[in-house]
Amino acid sequence: MAALFVALIHYPVTDRNGRVVTSAITSLDLHDIARSARTYGVVAYFVVHPVPDQREFAGRVLEHWQTGYGRNFDSRRREALDLIQVTNLDEAIVAAEQIAGARPLVVYTSARASGGIGYAEMRARLEREDAEPVMLLFGTGFGMAPPMLERADLALAPVLGPGEYNHLSVRAAAGIILDRLRGH
Amino acid sequence: MAALFVALIHYPVTDRNGRVVTSAITSLDLHDIARSARTYGVVAYFVVHPVPDQREFAGRVLEHWQTGYGRNFDSRRREALDLIQVTNLDEAIVAAEQIAGARPLVVYTSARASGGIGYAEMRARLEREDAEPVMLLFGTGFGMAPPMLERADLALAPVLGPGEYNHLSVRAAAGIILDRLRGH
Repeated sequence: MAALFVALIHYPVTDRNGRVVTSAITSLDLHDIARSARTYGVVAYFVVHPVPDQREFAGRVLEHWQTGYGRNFDSRRREALDLIQVTNLDEAIVAAEQIAGARPLVVYTSARASGGIGYAEMRARLEREDAEPVMLLFGTGFGMAPPMLERADLALAPVLGPGEYNHLSVRAAAGIILDRLRGH
Repeated sequence: MAALFVALIHYPVTDRNGRVVTSAITSLDLHDIARSARTYGVVAYFVVHPVPDQREFAGRVLEHWQTGYGRNFDSRRREALDLIQVTNLDEAIVAAEQIAGARPLVVYTSARASGGIGYAEMRARLEREDAEPVMLLFGTGFGMAPPMLERADLALAPVLGPGEYNHLSVRAAAGIILDRLRGH
């Protein structure tokens, strides 16, 4: 079974007007996606941000849960947050390669991706015995800006319900996509 | 296809020590679950809280998005938040019955439910032409306290990944369960 990685992208992402911006790291993105990652057997969750101050903020939140008061508060939260590495994308890919022994296939996710591969196909690919490692990219803000698509090896199809509305939060979308790829 | 309702329960829920408590309404629970509800064709999202002050807080958050500055900020958010009714459980069941024309089947969800029905079975039940309305209950805090199970007609099986850890956030769990029941 493939070693599965998750990366949460804060730049380049778009705002509601389609402008390219850098989004802020939020505490709940760390917690919620770490808990989903842990539930679905993700090996590491990379929080990717270009600004050192923002990475330091995330580091302080994590330190609270890993060594401070929070450590005793809830061991299941700590177990999830232990998956997090705060870094940039290049270093995340290197770290994943070091952990898994091969460069990960980088997979773009978006509510607006056209021509992405389907979930059954991706799931089967992850379950092959000789499966390559996979890193799923999730965008904050209003989704990743187009240059991120060029960094990826392939794109996943959007998550759809019965209608056309598919404006999920990244916290829900990450959980749903992990469940489609690894749920029982 | 069944009329599907969601209710987010703030009392009685448990804290990390298993004590029965009332949890606070949080803004992100409103937003994230409303967006998932809208994506999966949910008819109404009931935010269930016993304390009037808390219901007023939720009402003010909603008013901001429905009539104030937020209305123009992002119409997709407003479209999701329009699904919300802040109420208590009895009134939520009455409101669902008035909307759907029949009393909803009340379905308990929990990471620790044993003997709950599976997702394929529940999905098939929702898709029947003569399907009865269904209301999914989601617990905040560390999950609903046992008395809530007695209010429900049946329980859904827990969401599982490949391992034993299943400490998902309610925001992720609600998205995943809606996707399993209504995703395409």
